[in-house]
Amino acid sequence: MNDYSVFCVSDHTGVTVEAVAKSVLAQFPRLECSLITLPFVDSADKAQAAAARVAASPRALVFSSLTDPALRVPFRDAGLQVFDVFELIAPTVEAALGEAATPSGGHTHGMAPDYEARMEAVNFALNLDDGLSPERLGQADLVLVGVSRVGKTPTALYLALQYGLRAANYPLTPDDLELDALPAALLPHLPRLRGLTLSAERLAAIRQARYPDSRYASLAQCRSELAAAERLFRLHGLPVTDTTRMSVEEIAARLRSPA
Amino acid sequence: MNDYSVFCVSDHTGVTVEAVAKSVLAQFPRLECSLITLPFVDSADKAQAAAARVAASPRALVFSSLTDPALRVPFRDAGLQVFDVFELIAPTVEAALGEAATPSGGHTHGMAPDYEARMEAVNFALNLDDGLSPERLGQADLVLVGVSRVGKTPTALYLALQYGLRAANYPLTPDDLELDALPAALLPHLPRLRGLTLSAERLAAIRQARYPDSRYASLAQCRSELAAAERLFRLHGLPVTDTTRMSVEEIAARLRSPA
Repeated sequence: MNDYSVFCVSDHTGVTVEAVAKSVLAQFPRLECSLITLPFVDSADKAQAAAARVAASPRALVFSSLTDPALRVPFRDAGLQVFDVFELIAPTVEAALGEAATPSGGHTHGMAPDYEARMEAVNFALNLDDGLSPERLGQADLVLVGVSRVGKTPTALYLALQYGLRAANYPLTPDDLELDALPAALLPHLPRLRGLTLSAERLAAIRQARYPDSRYASLAQCRSELAAAERLFRLHGLPVTDTTRMSVEEIAARLRSPA
Repeated sequence: MNDYSVFCVSDHTGVTVEAVAKSVLAQFPRLECSLITLPFVDSADKAQAAAARVAASPRALVFSSLTDPALRVPFRDAGLQVFDVFELIAPTVEAALGEAATPSGGHTHGMAPDYEARMEAVNFALNLDDGLSPERLGQADLVLVGVSRVGKTPTALYLALQYGLRAANYPLTPDDLELDALPAALLPHLPRLRGLTLSAERLAAIRQARYPDSRYASLAQCRSELAAAERLFRLHGLPVTDTTRMSVEEIAARLRSPA
């Protein structure tokens, strides 16, 4: 099939409509397309300018999340197909609730009620990264535990940014792993600890990218550290997540809502 | 209106359907509701269990992103209203493209093509946080510059996690601000620099939460630092974003797609 230019037009950041467009377009695997996001299209003038820009593309599709229906008009006037999240979903919700939608209600712009908590959680994750400030572990919602490069830091940051969870992370060093228990600093916090593991092959590849041909990155070393870490997880009965084929988004969603 | 329990059911993380549900429900401002996310509902058994759980709630609405239509059946069989992202959007896209959707095509599960780049960008943002490793500034896509607590670090992390942009951040300290130019380490990178500022009142409130009643958090000190920083931004012609009423998501979207 020919290439399409897919425009994601939003009166806000465009993050939601981009995610929707990507999900829906994944159901058309033969489609080749490039995604262009046009955020903050929140006035008639900006809608007119965006529509003109889109109309100049030869094969354009428009996904939009424009709360004000008037902002969609310039696109339709230019003969463009528009798949609008609100237009396609709100009417069925209206029917179910027996209440009309208020388009001006719109997005949760700017500082949502949970915003301060999320930013505070980001600071927390940074302040308690990699075993820092262990005296504050008691303030954590979750403490991610695992060997070096298992994915603790990005997961903790994502838990904070996306969900406002205060996630600390604590490394298991080779020295820790030689002992028969988790580090003493962790023991008062067992119910909040979550073990992360992954395949030795994947860990070796990740470490290799950072320190090529080091002992640290060798498959034997990775195998031995992971086996010791998993033994400690079992010993203390920690819930364990195998992150081998998981993105941080997936790890975070599982940690947040355990099956 | 009465309270609703809104369930966001996904065969993946649920992040997209949560965002859609929040956006659409914001158009029903009189609705009181609590959001419950059920991620990784990716088998008939899990769909059955999820439907049973939802059906046990007295006033339930279901938003879903279930790529396999069969997984929506248990919810409908339980008499539940289901607003499914694919069901509501894919048919119009099919009609426009003249091609049938392949439901198994589904989400971009696991490691999307840009995943490694995004994780690398997170490491980059951490390694070049707060002026660290200035010798690597040349590798940055963007360098966020501003006074302490203006929002540089969370914005850089979000740019990395969400968009895979390599964002460094560099503080302007009171010592820097006394000079008549940006710090020397920044001068070779002027085209990549982005100034962040915000209102003195908001900055004082943020600093106050951290160091109550300090000189650092005083309104006078905040005013003076911000005025000096803005003078340097003007002097060097940097694009400036005023973050006073913006979330990190909004700041990041603007930095990524300047108007």
